[in-house]
Amino acid sequence: MKAVGICGSDVHYLKEMKLADFVVTEPMVIGHECAGVVEEVGAEVKHLVPGDRVAIEPGISCWRCNLCKEGRYNLCPEMKFFATPPVHGSLANQIVHPADLCFKLPENVSLEEGAMCEPLSVGVHACRRANVGPETNVLVMGAGPIGLVTLLAARAFGSPRIVIVDVDDHRLSVAKQLGADETVKVSTNVNDVGAEVELIKAAMGASVDIALDCAGFSKTMSTALGATCSGGKVCLVGMGHTEMTVPLAPAAVREVDVVGIFRYKNTWPLCIEFLQSGKIDVKPLITHRFGFSQKEVEDAFETSARGGAAIKVMFNL
Amino acid sequence: MKAVGICGSDVHYLKEMKLADFVVTEPMVIGHECAGVVEEVGAEVKHLVPGDRVAIEPGISCWRCNLCKEGRYNLCPEMKFFATPPVHGSLANQIVHPADLCFKLPENVSLEEGAMCEPLSVGVHACRRANVGPETNVLVMGAGPIGLVTLLAARAFGSPRIVIVDVDDHRLSVAKQLGADETVKVSTNVNDVGAEVELIKAAMGASVDIALDCAGFSKTMSTALGATCSGGKVCLVGMGHTEMTVPLAPAAVREVDVVGIFRYKNTWPLCIEFLQSGKIDVKPLITHRFGFSQKEVEDAFETSARGGAAIKVMFNL
Amino acid sequence: MKAVGICGSDVHYLKEMKLADFVVTEPMVIGHECAGVVEEVGAEVKHLVPGDRVAIEPGISCWRCNLCKEGRYNLCPEMKFFATPPVHGSLANQIVHPADLCFKLPENVSLEEGAMCEPLSVGVHACRRANVGPETNVLVMGAGPIGLVTLLAARAFGSPRIVIVDVDDHRLSVAKQLGADETVKVSTNVNDVGAEVELIKAAMGASVDIALDCAGFSKTMSTALGATCSGGKVCLVGMGHTEMTVPLAPAAVREVDVVGIFRYKNTWPLCIEFLQSGKIDVKPLITHRFGFSQKEVEDAFETSARGGAAIKVMFNL
Amino acid sequence: MKAVGICGSDVHYLKEMKLADFVVTEPMVIGHECAGVVEEVGAEVKHLVPGDRVAIEPGISCWRCNLCKEGRYNLCPEMKFFATPPVHGSLANQIVHPADLCFKLPENVSLEEGAMCEPLSVGVHACRRANVGPETNVLVMGAGPIGLVTLLAARAFGSPRIVIVDVDDHRLSVAKQLGADETVKVSTNVNDVGAEVELIKAAMGASVDIALDCAGFSKTMSTALGATCSGGKVCLVGMGHTEMTVPLAPAAVREVDVVGIFRYKNTWPLCIEFLQSGKIDVKPLITHRFGFSQKEVEDAFETSARGGAAIKVMFNL
Repeated sequence: MKAVGICGSDVHYLKEMKLADFVVTEPMVIGHECAGVVEEVGAEVKHLVPGDRVAIEPGISCWRCNLCKEGRYNLCPEMKFFATPPVHGSLANQIVHPADLCFKLPENVSLEEGAMCEPLSVGVHACRRANVGPETNVLVMGAGPIGLVTLLAARAFGSPRIVIVDVDDHRLSVAKQLGADETVKVSTNVNDVGAEVELIKAAMGASVDIALDCAGFSKTMSTALGATCSGGKVCLVGMGHTEMTVPLAPAAVREVDVVGIFRYKNTWPLCIEFLQSGKIDVKPLITHRFGFSQKEVEDAFETSARGGAAIKVMFNL
Repeated sequence: MKAVGICGSDVHYLKEMKLADFVVTEPMVIGHECAGVVEEVGAEVKHLVPGDRVAIEPGISCWRCNLCKEGRYNLCPEMKFFATPPVHGSLANQIVHPADLCFKLPENVSLEEGAMCEPLSVGVHACRRANVGPETNVLVMGAGPIGLVTLLAARAFGSPRIVIVDVDDHRLSVAKQLGADETVKVSTNVNDVGAEVELIKAAMGASVDIALDCAGFSKTMSTALGATCSGGKVCLVGMGHTEMTVPLAPAAVREVDVVGIFRYKNTWPLCIEFLQSGKIDVKPLITHRFGFSQKEVEDAFETSARGGAAIKVMFNL
Repeated sequence: MKAVGICGSDVHYLKEMKLADFVVTEPMVIGHECAGVVEEVGAEVKHLVPGDRVAIEPGISCWRCNLCKEGRYNLCPEMKFFATPPVHGSLANQIVHPADLCFKLPENVSLEEGAMCEPLSVGVHACRRANVGPETNVLVMGAGPIGLVTLLAARAFGSPRIVIVDVDDHRLSVAKQLGADETVKVSTNVNDVGAEVELIKAAMGASVDIALDCAGFSKTMSTALGATCSGGKVCLVGMGHTEMTVPLAPAAVREVDVVGIFRYKNTWPLCIEFLQSGKIDVKPLITHRFGFSQKEVEDAFETSARGGAAIKVMFNL
Repeated sequence: MKAVGICGSDVHYLKEMKLADFVVTEPMVIGHECAGVVEEVGAEVKHLVPGDRVAIEPGISCWRCNLCKEGRYNLCPEMKFFATPPVHGSLANQIVHPADLCFKLPENVSLEEGAMCEPLSVGVHACRRANVGPETNVLVMGAGPIGLVTLLAARAFGSPRIVIVDVDDHRLSVAKQLGADETVKVSTNVNDVGAEVELIKAAMGASVDIALDCAGFSKTMSTALGATCSGGKVCLVGMGHTEMTVPLAPAAVREVDVVGIFRYKNTWPLCIEFLQSGKIDVKPLITHRFGFSQKEVEDAFETSARGGAAIKVMFNL
């Protein structure tokens, strides 16, 4: 293992020893955004040899249930996923992993870029489910790490115009540098939804065909539903609120559909293609790098937990 | 005009002089579920002659906007629709209407069945948008007039197993007679959602692949979202609540998508095929019939407004 | 193993020791349409117990390649399939097979009906790929065993009107008994395509939305392409000719798409549902039954090879 | 009318007085690739004013038939299309045309680029029907005018790798300059199909996911079918042969689908977006420009008919 990024869920497990319904009851290795170098391969493996640099897809699905067989393996109820209790994660010197989940990196893609395939996959899967393409203007709600990779993915899928929204000026300026066409600063006050929908529409200057809500609060979702044009789509990516109070009916009568995502599937080859071709540059997202001493590990998690200027904190082992 | 059904929206306009954002400011003819006999046709009309019995699709769209051109004419912002102010409805002796929105009835389909194509179209459009077919078990929330036509449509689309839910025993027994496989009586108490989801799953005895919420309240939608299997779809058909409080995130992470509908498009030929072939029998839904005297008109609207045993109240002119 | 049907490919292997690119170089058990009774299950198997009657899906795919992961496992290049050299088939007393490819039969579905899930799956997969449903009139070219199961599948998928075509009167009369709305007898003379297209259109009396070519000759494909309406689909199911001379351009400019099929995927649960619910009755297709003595085995294959009144020849072990 | 391009069909009508089933029986204006300046607008037109520079979509469909209503208006049997007998074309000083088929050009898009929206639309429609995107490597058969616009469209739809094939070195070098990743020179000898498929696969160095056959001969189609990967798509764009002799069955068993196109629909806004954003530059395709004197008109058609270095010949009126 050579590069491992810290995800919000890792911080959550470290601090709370649980996430949603998953509870950590025994010592568990965390980490799931990773890349490394192959040490040894099984006898039947043909696409890899020791020494290959690989990015790693973290979930192992059962391939026996209906969902796996229908090509929606990300929804497999038997999924074994890095750092989801009781399965160990990948913030380790060495792991054993199925070869078909190890994707060889081209020469011009670094190991830490390879590790970024994991968060980037979330954006890619969201764009696929929402059908982002050269004919769809995109609104991204939230400019945190997931909002930013989603922005990059939407651009790579060909979206002609992207507006991004956040409560934080710094995040918006990062988004602008990463290629957002326009940014809109919003409040956390739910009464501002109507006015902010108008601001967003004005910033877009055209129809908002797809909204990707990377925050996932009642307010962001209400804004997304209100801003999206008739016949458009809203994809719920972020998970701010579990229960939401949203104007679902007025969106439904305009046939604005709401699609959700769970992780990703079949995204690594595309992410690697985006990185290799330069359609996506994830390097500006890696704001902090740490080694693997006790001290540095603690600093790394604290930096990630603090947020602020830290977008992605990466271990370079 | 020979047969005109009364819809909830007609009653609403009559009593309140408005519906949602639409306000009646001048005298307006109501009615939009209708069939009649052709009196005269334009010079270019080839598929109809005077004397033909026809069912009527009530909305005239612009065919110039993007939505019309992309085949989603039901979302046309310039739509002129019967009995939506300021456009007159069809509860009249005679109307003028585009020939391509008049669909000839086969001999074995009566005029009042023809008028039923309108509410049935709502169910058909919902089934199409949710992709109901021989591989999808369907949950219908609500056994009112729209819930019942949606049940009939889901069966005609080949759904192998349909469970229907309501708060009212009489409605459920009607649904059972119309072909629901199982019925589940529920409360209006939002705290019962969890328990009722379990009852519904047990009644289905298999995965709930698609839920069609024909009630549209926070509670029904919460139940629908909770009951639907990973990768399934919920279609919001009814409009009980504008703003809803629902567990959207837990559904989204199971990639349960929410699709809405607005009226229908291209449904008349299919509805007529369903009626002609006997795949759907709407006659049991027509519980009351009235003529066109002042007294009968008043009685008809009162009967419809009262609900109870009245499912569809029909004028036979 | 309790019921095994004979497929044309079995006869072909028996007589020619090869089929297309597959050559039999060592002794090989044939047979792949089968059902049996579970004798023993692995420790992790939860959905089956010894004594369960099961229908068997014959192909084992790799679940590591892109096609498997995308849900198109039938196209897996590493597929191990019964009776495709060098993999043994299932005309045997006992086989070992992955539990997730063994589908429990309901009480009202017999073992030989279970074995029929295999050929029926071809029809089901064709209907799925061609999008057969309650809005599509279907033309079936060829009333051999595959044409007949495809006819049954198209009906079960809700097609309102099905016309079937063959050169043989007996086959057409069987098709009529199985539910075809109209039959059209055709020649093998390619010059008759134009006239026969007109006969087919007249027999349909409406648009031919989908054609399922279960013969697969230049002539049948030409007829299918000519008869199908603008924007429709032709599915190539049969494999009469490898190279075909067909009017592809005139079909392409009417956006008549041509889709192919290879075997099937995820079809057993649906086939069993169709059999259990009575939407499909395959019993009339099983015209001959044999035991497992040397003499009977020889008779069975001769009967199948002879064709004529034999549709499906079944071993009842 | 300010810019009108010459299409192969214009030359064909001029020389032969017919094309396929369309025969010119009375004097007919030709031309259908055009842009101009608005002189006058109808009372209800809101998106245009006199003086606006507009690109023109040439076909007027009926909006009453099923195909129009389902969003496939390009297949409308009642279509009135420029320069398709008996409808006059647009190589004229002034025309009257529906406002919704006139698309305002942004400042940075010239009138002759606007006229190029028409041929470009063919490539765009092909890419849409074949589902070209960032995950699909594309093979383009033929580097004539339509092959080149299709190459540009495939790039704009995000295809990561495009190989283009032709018999002519000059055309291939133009294609290379326009952004093809690799070019493959082929023969017209049908016996070379096997070898050329291997050359194409080697040039792609990855799976050929989609082939766009812009030539439309038996040989090009055979090559396209052979080169495309299992589960891929071939789109038939060019119309070299009416009847084709092709290995359809081996492609069908790999579920390689064949889709056709007829003209285009809803493509002008996207073409204009591609031109405005610079994702597509059509200027290198306009190789010759002519005025409108008798002499120049004759020269223009001769230049276009001669082919050679002429890709697109444009009248600047």
